[in-house]
Amino acid sequence: MALKFEVLSTDGAARRGRLATPHGIIETPAFMPVGTLGSVKGLSPQALEGVGASVMLSNLYHLALRPGIDVVEELGGLHSFSGWKGPILTDSGGFQVFSLATLRKITEGGVDFRSHVDGSPVRFTPEGVVGMQRSLGVDIAMVLDECPPWPARRAVVAEAWDRTRRWADRARGTWEREPGPGGLFGIVQGGVFRDLRETSARQLVELDFDGYAIGGVSVGEPQVERYEVVEWTAPVLPEDKPRYLMGVGYPRDILHAVRQGIDLFDCVLPARNARHGLLFTRQGPVKIKNARYRRDPAPIEEGCPCPACVRTSRAFLHHLFRCGELTGAVLATLHNLQHYLDFMRDLRQATASGRLTDWTEANSLSNAAAEAT
Amino acid sequence: MALKFEVLSTDGAARRGRLATPHGIIETPAFMPVGTLGSVKGLSPQALEGVGASVMLSNLYHLALRPGIDVVEELGGLHSFSGWKGPILTDSGGFQVFSLATLRKITEGGVDFRSHVDGSPVRFTPEGVVGMQRSLGVDIAMVLDECPPWPARRAVVAEAWDRTRRWADRARGTWEREPGPGGLFGIVQGGVFRDLRETSARQLVELDFDGYAIGGVSVGEPQVERYEVVEWTAPVLPEDKPRYLMGVGYPRDILHAVRQGIDLFDCVLPARNARHGLLFTRQGPVKIKNARYRRDPAPIEEGCPCPACVRTSRAFLHHLFRCGELTGAVLATLHNLQHYLDFMRDLRQATASGRLTDWTEANSLSNAAAEAT
Repeated sequence: MALKFEVLSTDGAARRGRLATPHGIIETPAFMPVGTLGSVKGLSPQALEGVGASVMLSNLYHLALRPGIDVVEELGGLHSFSGWKGPILTDSGGFQVFSLATLRKITEGGVDFRSHVDGSPVRFTPEGVVGMQRSLGVDIAMVLDECPPWPARRAVVAEAWDRTRRWADRARGTWEREPGPGGLFGIVQGGVFRDLRETSARQLVELDFDGYAIGGVSVGEPQVERYEVVEWTAPVLPEDKPRYLMGVGYPRDILHAVRQGIDLFDCVLPARNARHGLLFTRQGPVKIKNARYRRDPAPIEEGCPCPACVRTSRAFLHHLFRCGELTGAVLATLHNLQHYLDFMRDLRQATASGRLTDWTEANSLSNAAAEAT
Repeated sequence: MALKFEVLSTDGAARRGRLATPHGIIETPAFMPVGTLGSVKGLSPQALEGVGASVMLSNLYHLALRPGIDVVEELGGLHSFSGWKGPILTDSGGFQVFSLATLRKITEGGVDFRSHVDGSPVRFTPEGVVGMQRSLGVDIAMVLDECPPWPARRAVVAEAWDRTRRWADRARGTWEREPGPGGLFGIVQGGVFRDLRETSARQLVELDFDGYAIGGVSVGEPQVERYEVVEWTAPVLPEDKPRYLMGVGYPRDILHAVRQGIDLFDCVLPARNARHGLLFTRQGPVKIKNARYRRDPAPIEEGCPCPACVRTSRAFLHHLFRCGELTGAVLATLHNLQHYLDFMRDLRQATASGRLTDWTEANSLSNAAAEAT
């Protein structure tokens, strides 16, 4: 196996782990900043390292459309192309095909769609998607899944769920015959239906993936339903493999999932909110464009080691956002990612010391407040 | 004097110098990256340090409109506000009043105009502009000057020139009574008229400023006329004070001016061109959006130590610009500033070793090519 996962300690269902990949170690639970097209918007690879990121998530769908997988492969793969030296996970594009692409047509063979960029026709198959991620040379590849919308009738979900299982089987076989440098994760589907989720998880486990993701969440469903999906699914997944909750979420959501035994997370929220001037702090959200911050000499968050907080004030960020200066978006992105990555470090420490329940109680207010953004 | 300037060595008229300011040393000849509103667009203060900048130029006109001088002063001055710890020079706003503001009315007392941001009325006076820069706490303040457009009749230029002299006298008196932490520079005006330029320089020297700028250039005049202005003016300025050519320019223009004895430069070109995908290299300009760079594995410039060149390729920059990704503008800005700052370092080394003529001959092609952007 090109991936090696070790659970160092547990606290209830929560796990403090270590995932070794061809491009380095991911200490888990971990948050993966999103660099859709190979970079987190506004950040050099060095700046992303600077806030403590240990792994970047990129997107096969977007990279396949631009610049094209062949270009990235010719440039030596995604690490060489993007300049990010640490581990990379690529999403398979399943979610994007069902949220961005147009004229989508699903058959047993795969999915045909039109690029949202220029309308050109593209075909994704379970085998092709695995092959493209192998060409990118990523550390963690994901199988192609069918991601039904929410809400959806059980019959619609079940059909997608069944096809996702068959696609996973084919993807696994392709990887078996010609593996990439890293590992391949399966994706549990099944909407908000407990039996579908549990069966999906068991079927994937039989296929023996290097890790297991919970997909089809963060698509608009209520928080309580998302929480249930995690609570149903996590216990079915093997203890010795990493578990990844896709596209989630606010710190409160991440905390909940960590307590159910989830190890990996990704979300566009910290970076996207940053570009809109919404800053995360332990004391709650800061809408930096608000007039109350015009003369506020405090850093965004006391004690934060990010490049913005160690040098400047809320007043300066307010000024940059009011003037539409690029630097505002860049500094805010650095801060929000630092906040998320420091939050994950706290969760790892609390889990390692068996104090996750205490930590949760001591920090419940701040997470509730952060969600309010 | 709060500023201390020392000429370490000369090569013809060119000077290798050292300007000590309250916030550190500026090795000259030096290029000052432009952080109009307190930041170079897209760069944290740390990133600006990272490419080797030793001084930042900000703009009093813009800061007076947003966030207002009182806000910056309340936040501890421009260094504390912006997080830039090195020396700062602020332009007096004369140029901007005459290029951006509307409903401009000039009287002997000063200039009344409307903000280009919200149309609110503003009044700049020679005394007020000096006082505002003192409040910002900058290392180098500039007198208010009147900057006539180009082309302009001699009578128009002469009137502005004469008023600029009287304004300089008043600014000098204000500074004498209540100096700021740094120094105050006078600005030579006089359009493209040799006698006006020489007389202006002599009159300013009598007022004994801490340094002398050549203003009213880079306003559309042909290169040959701008070169003549520098050639006429520099010899009239005292050898023991720094000389600053405002708003210039391409590397070739800077080289010409260094050889006439100019010490300080600023220009928006490297950063603005970067945001448009125009990259400077010693081998000539790179229009990175051009299809020829789609699969180019070379760094923007071989041997360049900037964050983009040490990690990524022209192909990656091409991809980021084609996709409109923020990171493209950020990486390109880092590269172009690194290019300018390394160019200045080369000029300092060539001057110090008395090899500026050799250096100029060996590098003439690249500068001509750079100009072609």
